[in-house]
Amino acid sequence: MEIFFSDSISGPVLTLSGDEAQHCARVLRHRAGDEINVIDGLGTLYRCTLEVADARECTASIIDTVPGFGSHPYRLTMAVCPTKNTDRYEWFAEKVTEIGVDSIVPVIGDRSERRVLKTDRLKRIVLSAVKQSLKGAIPPVCEPLSVKEFIESVPEDAVKMICYCFEDQEKVSVAQVLGDARSRPGTKDIYILIGPEGDFSPAEAELARSLGWRAVTLGPSRLRTETAAIVAATQVYSALCF
Amino acid sequence: MEIFFSDSISGPVLTLSGDEAQHCARVLRHRAGDEINVIDGLGTLYRCTLEVADARECTASIIDTVPGFGSHPYRLTMAVCPTKNTDRYEWFAEKVTEIGVDSIVPVIGDRSERRVLKTDRLKRIVLSAVKQSLKGAIPPVCEPLSVKEFIESVPEDAVKMICYCFEDQEKVSVAQVLGDARSRPGTKDIYILIGPEGDFSPAEAELARSLGWRAVTLGPSRLRTETAAIVAATQVYSALCF
Repeated sequence: MEIFFSDSISGPVLTLSGDEAQHCARVLRHRAGDEINVIDGLGTLYRCTLEVADARECTASIIDTVPGFGSHPYRLTMAVCPTKNTDRYEWFAEKVTEIGVDSIVPVIGDRSERRVLKTDRLKRIVLSAVKQSLKGAIPPVCEPLSVKEFIESVPEDAVKMICYCFEDQEKVSVAQVLGDARSRPGTKDIYILIGPEGDFSPAEAELARSLGWRAVTLGPSRLRTETAAIVAATQVYSALCF
Repeated sequence: MEIFFSDSISGPVLTLSGDEAQHCARVLRHRAGDEINVIDGLGTLYRCTLEVADARECTASIIDTVPGFGSHPYRLTMAVCPTKNTDRYEWFAEKVTEIGVDSIVPVIGDRSERRVLKTDRLKRIVLSAVKQSLKGAIPPVCEPLSVKEFIESVPEDAVKMICYCFEDQEKVSVAQVLGDARSRPGTKDIYILIGPEGDFSPAEAELARSLGWRAVTLGPSRLRTETAAIVAATQVYSALCF
């Protein structure tokens, strides 16, 4: 099943432009009358009939609507410090998109070696993973902000987990935190924060703790930043999808 | 902590050769008298004093021994069909090594598009991941064999899971299979088999079922082969490490 993305849907008609129109009309040689599947990036799939197949702009009429297409039963924000090697960060973004994530936030820690990250390429990788894994919602990739700004921006009643290495801290598992959250009222939005190769600074860890973030362990293995991120996302997915 | 690998350990002395000696004496410029950490690839770490630092061959005397270094409390074989793009398979091998795996078996299915896989580069990637994630055991990378040969080669009393897409099959979760295994006697060796992009053939699935393999679901998301493999490995790790 091949999927296109449209940000221009109005009533019973939608248009594909840019790369999407190119891909539809030129690469895949779709013609007027063909049935195509289009997502709005917000969670809905539209089954459509192609009316105008032009590599500059395609127009299609909507036959049917599938809300919550490929959705998962939780809302997860992954805030992860950029890795030294950008490939590894791109790989993380692709994989958590396949598994199920709702927002990707590059955060820059006091000890981050990489302090700049271009998000354009990341957004293309995420879009491609969304289409490939048959989802209707495209997780936004935010512009980088500091770890401290991020920690302070998260709503008080969210489920907030921070993964760091300080050995003197008592830590609980992701499953334990999710279990505890189930028994209390309020939002179930989940935030996971994963630090840089050199870990968070004590000031960042202290700020998080003071604002109700729980220190979690992902298990005994020593994982790279991007592996920790995918293991954490998998633990949320596994705890809440079965 | 930097780790070297030696396959030549005899009594209180060990030697590093090839790339390991190069890396120790030339790249990192270690000198006689330096303390170094060496794994045997079978699970043990040796703390040593370097006696001879030569880029062709280094010799070290063993001070201390750490058995089960970086080990995990299960034995897991991941048999995964090669992906069309070899990078993705290398990434899978690296990540499951970090998380915890005991053997990697490339298997060729009836519907595999890629039917040949060179294991030399994979072995180097796995060794590098072992060192980076501070483990003593190097999971062997087997030479490719067919899915059917692999299915038939696994001991009867092992915990055997096959991940495939046939929608008419009833499936259980990895956690459920591991829970069931806990309550019965016999080996706890775990085998997970993951098919190619085009899924297993009905004959392969039927053979597996007839030999006691259980069909597992990794959850609702549609995952690429390599993502399915890491999610499955993470589910085993998460179920058995906490």
